[in-house]
Amino acid sequence: MAAHTARFSLSTRGKGTVEITGQVESIVAASGIRNGTVTVFVRHTSASLVIMENADPSARRDLEKFFDHLVPENTPWFIHTAEGPDDMPSHIRMALTRTSEVIPIMDGRMVLGTWQGIFLFEHRRAPHHREIAVAVVGE
Amino acid sequence: MAAHTARFSLSTRGKGTVEITGQVESIVAASGIRNGTVTVFVRHTSASLVIMENADPSARRDLEKFFDHLVPENTPWFIHTAEGPDDMPSHIRMALTRTSEVIPIMDGRMVLGTWQGIFLFEHRRAPHHREIAVAVVGE
Amino acid sequence: MAAHTARFSLSTRGKGTVEITGQVESIVAASGIRNGTVTVFVRHTSASLVIMENADPSARRDLEKFFDHLVPENTPWFIHTAEGPDDMPSHIRMALTRTSEVIPIMDGRMVLGTWQGIFLFEHRRAPHHREIAVAVVGE
Repeated sequence: MAAHTARFSLSTRGKGTVEITGQVESIVAASGIRNGTVTVFVRHTSASLVIMENADPSARRDLEKFFDHLVPENTPWFIHTAEGPDDMPSHIRMALTRTSEVIPIMDGRMVLGTWQGIFLFEHRRAPHHREIAVAVVGE
Repeated sequence: MAAHTARFSLSTRGKGTVEITGQVESIVAASGIRNGTVTVFVRHTSASLVIMENADPSARRDLEKFFDHLVPENTPWFIHTAEGPDDMPSHIRMALTRTSEVIPIMDGRMVLGTWQGIFLFEHRRAPHHREIAVAVVGE
Repeated sequence: MAAHTARFSLSTRGKGTVEITGQVESIVAASGIRNGTVTVFVRHTSASLVIMENADPSARRDLEKFFDHLVPENTPWFIHTAEGPDDMPSHIRMALTRTSEVIPIMDGRMVLGTWQGIFLFEHRRAPHHREIAVAVVGE
């Protein structure tokens, strides 16, 4: 039984989803753990994670646009506006998706389904540097 | 310390919630792990998981209907429509709920509250075959 | 490798977010685990968890108000209304946020980002007694 932790970071281009499945796969492989779980965690409150279809990018476009509609910028009653009109919607879109994803590992590999990829979901308009922490536990 | 992984599958009848608490309990019991966590993971992007009230089915009816209203089929600006009008709403409803649930185990049992059950949330209209992966880690 | 589990409870004052980061930190420190994960789990279906900005309380006010707007009380087609007008919205707001949060531990500490705090999100109008279960696994 063992625990293996790692971090990595990436730069986003502003709002949108960025696939990080490959980085997580590499950490799982390096851990040597054959059975257990991998936890992926984003260390921010204006970006989040989502496991989403990785085949047709149009599905991610619609997902991103849906969140723009659901939590509009310039909602008149927002009071937390000092950091710009895209800040408060970012926090809410984060709360509606996920800060961590936990994926079982069997026979040394994540059990992702055929169409599942792990994505960082950047909610701010400007490019940001984002840090991801990963913990693999098992045996 | 040990890690125990398993899979099971189920057939859904189309949109709605299906309780899977019993299947997960059986896997936890078979693992022999007394303290730790169980991770439940759905290997699909058009179905999700939710821990929900398991007593009165009317609560789940309202939950399901709420998601129908929140993410309507035939939203005019959806572009990912090749797989039918219920496909893109399924992905978004999945992203708004959960792909994994992680439940602590104490004294050999999940610490679910009195009214908590684990449910698969099928978002497609047609019946589907769904695969669930489970990882129990602890000692 | 070890697993350490604990529980704690708190009383809420009705709707709103209550920070529980300190209680979780204490359990992580007491576990002696240096690398692994901590799972925080709320044992209720009308309260949830969210990792949210902990600096400016106005961000949490807007988050809470957003959920009031998104899932209004007295939605005319709700049928699960026997426990009062705030009950069904509570279940839905729970489903839209999280029942568990999983945070990696490195060098004996949770890897929370600078502005991340762990919050219990109470969705009922009346004060409630809420139970949290915590599992630390790692080595």
